[in-house]
Amino acid sequence: MEQTDTTLYNDILHRRRRLQEYLQKMDIDACVICTNVNLFYLTGLIYTGFLFVPAQGEPIHFIKNAGTSLPQGIVEKIRKPEQIADILSQHNLALPRNILLETDTLPYNLAQRILNSFQHPSVENASVLMRQIRSIKSDYEITQIKSCAQKHISVYKIIPDLYKKGMSDLQLQIEIEHQMRLHGSIGLFRTYGENMEIFMGSLLAGNNAQNPSPFDFALGGAGANNIAPLGANGTILCEGMSIMVDMAGNYSPWTTDMTRVFSIGKISETAYKAHQTSIEIHQDIVHHFKTGMPCNELWQKALKLVEKNQLLPYFMGTTSQAKFVGHGVGLEINEPPVITPRSQEILQQNMVFALEPKFVIPNVGAVGIENTYLVTSSGLENITPFTEEIIPLG
Amino acid sequence: MEQTDTTLYNDILHRRRRLQEYLQKMDIDACVICTNVNLFYLTGLIYTGFLFVPAQGEPIHFIKNAGTSLPQGIVEKIRKPEQIADILSQHNLALPRNILLETDTLPYNLAQRILNSFQHPSVENASVLMRQIRSIKSDYEITQIKSCAQKHISVYKIIPDLYKKGMSDLQLQIEIEHQMRLHGSIGLFRTYGENMEIFMGSLLAGNNAQNPSPFDFALGGAGANNIAPLGANGTILCEGMSIMVDMAGNYSPWTTDMTRVFSIGKISETAYKAHQTSIEIHQDIVHHFKTGMPCNELWQKALKLVEKNQLLPYFMGTTSQAKFVGHGVGLEINEPPVITPRSQEILQQNMVFALEPKFVIPNVGAVGIENTYLVTSSGLENITPFTEEIIPLG
Repeated sequence: MEQTDTTLYNDILHRRRRLQEYLQKMDIDACVICTNVNLFYLTGLIYTGFLFVPAQGEPIHFIKNAGTSLPQGIVEKIRKPEQIADILSQHNLALPRNILLETDTLPYNLAQRILNSFQHPSVENASVLMRQIRSIKSDYEITQIKSCAQKHISVYKIIPDLYKKGMSDLQLQIEIEHQMRLHGSIGLFRTYGENMEIFMGSLLAGNNAQNPSPFDFALGGAGANNIAPLGANGTILCEGMSIMVDMAGNYSPWTTDMTRVFSIGKISETAYKAHQTSIEIHQDIVHHFKTGMPCNELWQKALKLVEKNQLLPYFMGTTSQAKFVGHGVGLEINEPPVITPRSQEILQQNMVFALEPKFVIPNVGAVGIENTYLVTSSGLENITPFTEEIIPLG
Repeated sequence: MEQTDTTLYNDILHRRRRLQEYLQKMDIDACVICTNVNLFYLTGLIYTGFLFVPAQGEPIHFIKNAGTSLPQGIVEKIRKPEQIADILSQHNLALPRNILLETDTLPYNLAQRILNSFQHPSVENASVLMRQIRSIKSDYEITQIKSCAQKHISVYKIIPDLYKKGMSDLQLQIEIEHQMRLHGSIGLFRTYGENMEIFMGSLLAGNNAQNPSPFDFALGGAGANNIAPLGANGTILCEGMSIMVDMAGNYSPWTTDMTRVFSIGKISETAYKAHQTSIEIHQDIVHHFKTGMPCNELWQKALKLVEKNQLLPYFMGTTSQAKFVGHGVGLEINEPPVITPRSQEILQQNMVFALEPKFVIPNVGAVGIENTYLVTSSGLENITPFTEEIIPLG
C-alpha cells in the first residue's frame, strides 16, 4: 500500500511536470484546473475547488469542499473563486498575464468569475492540452489499464451464462451491468463532450443497431426512453439476430474499451463475412503497424479491406455512417487520438487506443470487434485478448 | 398512445409559452437552449443542437445530430453554431439584441461561439430561469412523478429480501441497483452543478456516514474509489449498524427522492430517538404547512424539533453538517427550491420537493427519512408513502 502510494504520488508529480513543461514552452504563466477528471489526473483526488499550476514552482490546491483526504502540497481553503487572486498575492505570486482554462468544458459563468478575479488575463484552452498530455500513458496508468482489461474480459466470459431465451436486449444488458458491478465496475462511465451521456455502455440487438442517436458514439440505438436516447430499446432477442456488446470497461479510473458479438442461432452469411472482415482489419493493422504512424493510415487500411469485401454500405452504420474506426481511451472513454480519414495525429509510444471497425447488417444487427491496444516501442500490444469469433447464445 | 402524445405535446407547448412570457416580461429577445435536460423539457427529445426560442413566434430547432425522431415544428439542419445567425436572417428574423444562455452550465467556448455568431448581444442567465420555470410542475409532470414514486416504493419493499449476512454496503447497493433496473430505472441519474457526480444513488452504513464528500449532497460517504468519492465504501454490514438507503428514483424522466433506514439487529437508543424525531419533523411540517410559505420556515420548524430533542450535534452530519433539509425534484434530483435557513423561496402550488431531515449517529450510522411531497392548493401530499420506521434486516 505504502509502495503503491509512493508510486502513484511520483506519477502525479511527473504528470504535473509535463504540464509545466508545456506551460513554459507555450510561454503561459499558469493553468487553472477545475473539472473532476483533470483534477483527479493531477492530484489523485477529486475536490470541489481549483488547482492552480504555475509554469514554475509548486501548485496550490484551492479547496472549497474536500472528501475524506486532502492532497499533498499547499492547500488553501476558499469559499469562492474570487479569493484565488488575493491568496496568490499572499504567497507573493503575481497575477498571471495569461492562463489556460478548461474552456471546452468549464461553464461560462465560472470561467468569467475566474477571469474577472485575475483581472482579465488572456485565456487559452487547457481542455485540448490536458487531453493531449493524458493521451501518453505512464507505466502506472498502463498497469491500471491492464488490470481493468482483465476484469472487462472476465465479465464478457460469463455473458453466455446470463442469456435466457425470450429476453430483451435491455434485460440481457441489465444482467451484464449487474456482473460488471460485482466485478468491481465503478459505475460512473465518463465521456467527453457537452451532451454525450451514456449509462454503463451499449448493447445493440437486431435492427436497433440501425437507429441513429443524437450522440457522437460509433453506433447509436434508439434507447428505451427519450431522456436517454442511446443503446438498447427493448428489442426481444430472436433467432438470426446478432447482439453487439460494447459495455464499459470502468473497473479502474483508467478505462478499457472492448466489443464482442453474440448471436442467437445462425446469422446471415453477410454478417459472418463482415465480422470476419473486422477481425482481418485488426490483424492487418497489428501486422503492419509502425509506432509513429498517423491515425489516418489506420483508417485507410480499414477502408481498403472494407471496399475489397464490398461491405461499404454496412460499414459503421447504414443510414447514418460514422467516419471513424477508433479513439484513445483513458480516464474518459473518448480521448485523443481519433482514427478518422483526416486525422494527422501520430500514434506514439504509450498511447492506448480502441480500434472498432464495425458493420451494421439489416435484419441481423451489428457485427465486428473492438480491442484496446497499447502502442509499444515496436508495435501494438492487444490488452483485451479474448475470443474474437461470434459467440452463439442459448 | 395517440392520446398521451397529444397530452405531452400540449404540455410542451405550455412550457414554451411560459418561457416566452418570461422573455416578454424581462424584455429579452430570445433564449438559446443547448443542454440535454432543458432541451428535453422544451421539446420532449434530446438532440445535439440548439433550440432558439424567440420572445414571440415559433421556436426553431437547429439540429446537428438527431435521434430516431425529429421534433415537431421548424427544423433546420446545421453543422456548427455559427450557422444559426445566417439561418435566422433567411427566416426574416433580426438578430436578438439580448439573449438568455444557460451560462451556469454551458461551456465557455460554446457560449463564446454563439455570442460571436450573434454579434455580441448582451447575455443573461437562462440556467436560473429554466430551473425556476421547471420548479412548477404541470399535471402531466405530476402524473410522471407519481408513477415514478410507485416504482421507487416497489424496489424499497424488496430490500429486506436482498440482504444476506456478511454483505458489504456496496454488495447490498449493487443488488438494489439490479432491482432498480429490472423495475425500469433509466440508469442515468442527473444532478445539477458542475462537479456533482453520483452513480445510482447513495447507501450509507455505519461510520461511513460521517465521511465528508467533496460534493454538495445532503450526506457524504467516502466512496469505494478516489475517482468517485461518494457513498458506499465497502463497509461490512454488522450488528448495531444503521443502513440509510437513498437510491435514485429515476424510473421516469421526472424523478422522486426517498430515503428509508434499515438496521442489522438493534441500534442505539439515540439512533431510534433521532429517527423518530425525523418522522416528527415530517409530521409537524405536513400538519402546519400552508401553501405560499417560504422555505426557511420549514427549516426553522425542523431545527426547533432537533434542538428540543438535543440532537443538534448529529443533525445533517457530525464533522461536516449541511445547513439544508430539502430541495425540489424534477428532471434533475437537485432542483429549486432549497430548504435552508436563509431561503426566501416560496413553496407554491405544483412544486414538488423532497424533505430529508437526517442524523448521523457515531458508531451506528445515518437515520431519518426522506419523502417527496407535492404542494397542492391546500397543503402537502406525500407521494412516497411507505413504512417510515427503521426496518430490521436478517
